[in-house]
Amino acid sequence: MITVQKYGGSSVASTEKIMTVAKRIKHAAECSQVVVVVSAMGDATDQLIAMAKAISKIPNERELDKLLATGEQASSALLTLALHELGTQAVSLTGGQAGIITESTPGKARILNVNPERLSQELNEGKVVVVAGFQGITENATWADITTLGRGGSDTTAVALAAALHADRCEIYTDVDGVFTADPRICLNARKLDSICYEEMLELAGQGARVMHSRAVELGEIYGVNILVAHSVREVPGTLICKEDDTMEARNPVRGIAHDTDVAKITVTSLPDRPGIAYQIFHALAEANINVDVIVQNVSSQGVTDMSFTVNLADLAKAQSVLDPIMQNVGAKNLTTSVDLAKVSIVGTGIRSHPGYADTMFGALAKNGINIVSITTSEIRITCLIDKADVQQAVQSLHDAFELEKPDGPVKGE
Amino acid sequence: MITVQKYGGSSVASTEKIMTVAKRIKHAAECSQVVVVVSAMGDATDQLIAMAKAISKIPNERELDKLLATGEQASSALLTLALHELGTQAVSLTGGQAGIITESTPGKARILNVNPERLSQELNEGKVVVVAGFQGITENATWADITTLGRGGSDTTAVALAAALHADRCEIYTDVDGVFTADPRICLNARKLDSICYEEMLELAGQGARVMHSRAVELGEIYGVNILVAHSVREVPGTLICKEDDTMEARNPVRGIAHDTDVAKITVTSLPDRPGIAYQIFHALAEANINVDVIVQNVSSQGVTDMSFTVNLADLAKAQSVLDPIMQNVGAKNLTTSVDLAKVSIVGTGIRSHPGYADTMFGALAKNGINIVSITTSEIRITCLIDKADVQQAVQSLHDAFELEKPDGPVKGE
Repeated sequence: MITVQKYGGSSVASTEKIMTVAKRIKHAAECSQVVVVVSAMGDATDQLIAMAKAISKIPNERELDKLLATGEQASSALLTLALHELGTQAVSLTGGQAGIITESTPGKARILNVNPERLSQELNEGKVVVVAGFQGITENATWADITTLGRGGSDTTAVALAAALHADRCEIYTDVDGVFTADPRICLNARKLDSICYEEMLELAGQGARVMHSRAVELGEIYGVNILVAHSVREVPGTLICKEDDTMEARNPVRGIAHDTDVAKITVTSLPDRPGIAYQIFHALAEANINVDVIVQNVSSQGVTDMSFTVNLADLAKAQSVLDPIMQNVGAKNLTTSVDLAKVSIVGTGIRSHPGYADTMFGALAKNGINIVSITTSEIRITCLIDKADVQQAVQSLHDAFELEKPDGPVKGE
Repeated sequence: MITVQKYGGSSVASTEKIMTVAKRIKHAAECSQVVVVVSAMGDATDQLIAMAKAISKIPNERELDKLLATGEQASSALLTLALHELGTQAVSLTGGQAGIITESTPGKARILNVNPERLSQELNEGKVVVVAGFQGITENATWADITTLGRGGSDTTAVALAAALHADRCEIYTDVDGVFTADPRICLNARKLDSICYEEMLELAGQGARVMHSRAVELGEIYGVNILVAHSVREVPGTLICKEDDTMEARNPVRGIAHDTDVAKITVTSLPDRPGIAYQIFHALAEANINVDVIVQNVSSQGVTDMSFTVNLADLAKAQSVLDPIMQNVGAKNLTTSVDLAKVSIVGTGIRSHPGYADTMFGALAKNGINIVSITTSEIRITCLIDKADVQQAVQSLHDAFELEKPDGPVKGE
């Protein structure tokens, strides 16, 4: 049996916590071969970013990746030392040593391939293998560049290794008990889910739920890796992310509420309304690897129009530097930004087959006096852009409106 | 023209200092291709060691290497970002990316080979290449282990790269103005040398002078790399480490005084006095890569003897753990250690051809009431083991006795 376990940064934030995690791993290693994926200690990554930004406002991403990759290299070595102290044979590997080959896009490189030869060899020698999460290299060559996988990259490392090794279990240990119907920090009666399907988890993660990163869930879906999300210290059952099955029919068609306050809105005003302009803008953003979400274009008037869209707050400075030259090129008047907005979403595979959910959602928000700036939907999600100040009230009122506090069970058809 | 510059940890201890160093590099890059080798920021390495020791008293060296290597990886990325800010094209490389292949001995691996393909390519593209010092990898393979080169390892990296690239200059920038006749912190009239030959520098470095590490000087001698040691900020001429030439004849036969307080003495008492016992002890220490210095064996009495030797203070714990099982095997009574001693040495190629220097040395120490525990010599060095408390007085009195404060110049034969 092979088990992949991932421990997040808060689980290894101090040498004491590293010892605690090591004990849990030692226990797991008594009945399985174990691969551990580890994040950087506590706020190590933030500290490294702060140093880079003290030197350069928009640091070169290749160098930033190399800088950030040290965080996981360090924590993996320390965790391995802790395992040695407990008498458990163990060895640490960097992403590159573990054979994780990625695209050469720095900052959010996708994994292209995993060559787990050394990893398998070390496992077969009876060792726990501790892999530095969040990182890979661009080619199978010693001179290859070091890349990082973006936010939540260690989750992606864990699922990719579980897939490559045909692992029996992939366990993501974190500082929460599992996946909740809403963020329990802002929703009083949020309920932990026993299971959730990949598709729903993807929508929740894509819309701000931080418990798992989208890329990891996507990989899990593609390779059929069942992912258990659980608390790294508390011994409570977590949430299993798996394929949707028939038993899931018997539950609330809305599975959870996500919210995201890391939203920046960019508005381009007096944009000439002719073909190709939108392409220029969104192509440049795509080239720079910036995801664009809610897009709204106003009705054209006198040959010019205004266009708004949202990006992740972390991408705002980069988006501006990408767009500035284009503004001049296309003859747009100016570019304004706002960081006072947030997104709130309802997610559930049931939405696809049950109409009427948009109605309930808008009604609940309206009843609470919350203004909706704009709306986007997917087959299993409805997202509203609202004022950041309204987020907590919005999440709680939607949770109440859809009765998400009630445990799953046979539900009567609507 | 190719210049290799190395900057020590104190020169890059903060983001401000990194910017200062970057300006110096930018200047050098205006008239030469430049390779920069950089140490970890300030006390970063010590902090990493402290974390490892908080987990494990004697940390596994392979994991420790991997942990420590992050320090230079981080500083090289940050320095590269600083060069970008100044508009200088630059790229950072880890030791492995720079093609530095080492022995697999962790903690103090020797460089076996340098494959500077990527390095040369980046240089030819007009970039300053910033290489993480102090580290290499064990094979030309992505799964290879990361090794470190031991104390002063970044100097070694710089000289090795200078040799591999046939660089025109190898400049070691540090927090002192050059090589002095004695440590200026404890000797009031210590004088900076304009030049010193490899052999003398080796003896000084081997006996505690910290300005350059022995391995780097050895490599410089083998490959004929002239090494300039100079201050990283102050614009004063440094010291050139080069081949001994005729002009050097016209100077003080004693070149400098070294002292070393990182000395631990190990004494094995009641050791059976039969052949092979010393071999067992020193073979085990050599296997563990521990250098043994001053060895004293007492006169045998009733078939048993006492034996003392010194090791570097940093190796003491490891030496004890290596020796403990052997003590039982050979039937020795016990093992005691002392950390109250220090070494003081006079060094100069002139010693080889001018007898009588031991006399002057012992006389100067005796006149100051300093007890000599034991003595070792090389062709160009005399070392005395003394009480740690006497070090400063010993260095000053030897400096005075040999008139090292007087500038070099035509000297009359003795």
